[in-house]
Amino acid sequence: MPEDSHPAPLQIVLVSPRNPLNIGAAARAMANFGFTHLTVVAPYAPHWQEARSAIGASDLLQNAKVSTTLAGAVADCTLVVGTGTLTHRKPEQPVVTLPDLPSRLIPEIERGGRVALVFGPEKHGLTREDLSCCHLLVEIPTHPHQPSMNLGQAVAVCLYELAARLTAPARINIQPHPSSSHPAAPDAPSADLELLSGVIEKVMLAAAYSPPSMQDANRHDLRLFLRRLALTRRDARRVLGFFRRVLHRLERWSE
Amino acid sequence: MPEDSHPAPLQIVLVSPRNPLNIGAAARAMANFGFTHLTVVAPYAPHWQEARSAIGASDLLQNAKVSTTLAGAVADCTLVVGTGTLTHRKPEQPVVTLPDLPSRLIPEIERGGRVALVFGPEKHGLTREDLSCCHLLVEIPTHPHQPSMNLGQAVAVCLYELAARLTAPARINIQPHPSSSHPAAPDAPSADLELLSGVIEKVMLAAAYSPPSMQDANRHDLRLFLRRLALTRRDARRVLGFFRRVLHRLERWSE
Repeated sequence: MPEDSHPAPLQIVLVSPRNPLNIGAAARAMANFGFTHLTVVAPYAPHWQEARSAIGASDLLQNAKVSTTLAGAVADCTLVVGTGTLTHRKPEQPVVTLPDLPSRLIPEIERGGRVALVFGPEKHGLTREDLSCCHLLVEIPTHPHQPSMNLGQAVAVCLYELAARLTAPARINIQPHPSSSHPAAPDAPSADLELLSGVIEKVMLAAAYSPPSMQDANRHDLRLFLRRLALTRRDARRVLGFFRRVLHRLERWSE
Repeated sequence: MPEDSHPAPLQIVLVSPRNPLNIGAAARAMANFGFTHLTVVAPYAPHWQEARSAIGASDLLQNAKVSTTLAGAVADCTLVVGTGTLTHRKPEQPVVTLPDLPSRLIPEIERGGRVALVFGPEKHGLTREDLSCCHLLVEIPTHPHQPSMNLGQAVAVCLYELAARLTAPARINIQPHPSSSHPAAPDAPSADLELLSGVIEKVMLAAAYSPPSMQDANRHDLRLFLRRLALTRRDARRVLGFFRRVLHRLERWSE
């Protein structure tokens, strides 16, 4: 395997990890498979401190970014992939199994996109709110009797699959990005989608689109919807400009 | 994934694991990927006890076999695969990378063979003596800066690869067993090879084949040699019968 083979295009995000041993194990798996960019979202401070100060804690842990929200952590990413078992919930995004993930990521990375692979807390995994930041879910094909994996082991298995296939393109059958009509342009980063989502939500409210009791559900559906569209940056900016204009008008009339 | 998809044909062997957390993690990964047969060789008794009595310890750990030697643990196996990093040693057996392991195991299992996947202790991995029980080594393709994996994570990664590919034969390109001229007959189990090896060693001594100082080195080379041959059971029995006869003669003459 070539050295420094997985630079910035792919970052690993751990949302609120609890166990310092798991944080260390995730970092070790990253080092094993040549990934360097770790972001930790809203860690429990004492455990995060413990993980970073452990004997043998790597540069990778020392250099990890800390973010208060998942939306902030993935702000510059064009493809956000959530992990976890889908046994007890109905997925709201497209799902791929792990062996099929590399062929989905490679075109995104090749056209200059940035990918985040997001892991939830040990106990309950990613929340519905977390999942609404994801474009795609990946499922590790586990046995129905014991579907739930240990965090450090799940990270290791995912990164093994990506390292083995991303560095050996000949092994995989690259397929075109199924949801994009702009193969040459990377998708809009998550921050643009969040901005757009926020403005559209205000438009909904200003237009009294639905009762206030529906606001949370609408926001959730909207975030997922925007991610399904695979907007380019340029698309996102134009749509944003349009909705800002609409909002401005609505607010003026309601004065 | 179908239930009970990996019965007896494949067993996992942990040689002298030290950390109860790692034993538990290995067992959890086995359950995650539908493997049920665990053997532990010469465990450190207090730690083994602790792992088995941990909260949530699985039936799999309760039902694990314990063996005093690796040779005993793999006695009924026709293909013994050793794991570990090869950074600091020159392999004496054929080596495959993990992505290529399924295509090597499937023909063995299809013709009725039994496979063992062997993991060494956390600190130093499998010894040279352990490796002499192996027909084949598997290497997980890790980054040169941090090649050595945590035991529980290494087990998870190997079993993920096997489960994903063994249950999806269409994914892989099955290749014929490169070292066998008997595609229809399974190889001799390890116990037969051990028996044969022991008799041949006695013949060497009885025949004063080489100075006693060479005995350990000869034994080591002999074990590796017999495993390279891929003898069928019938082959092994016939060769054994021959060497028993030779030994009987040598011992009679030396009286």
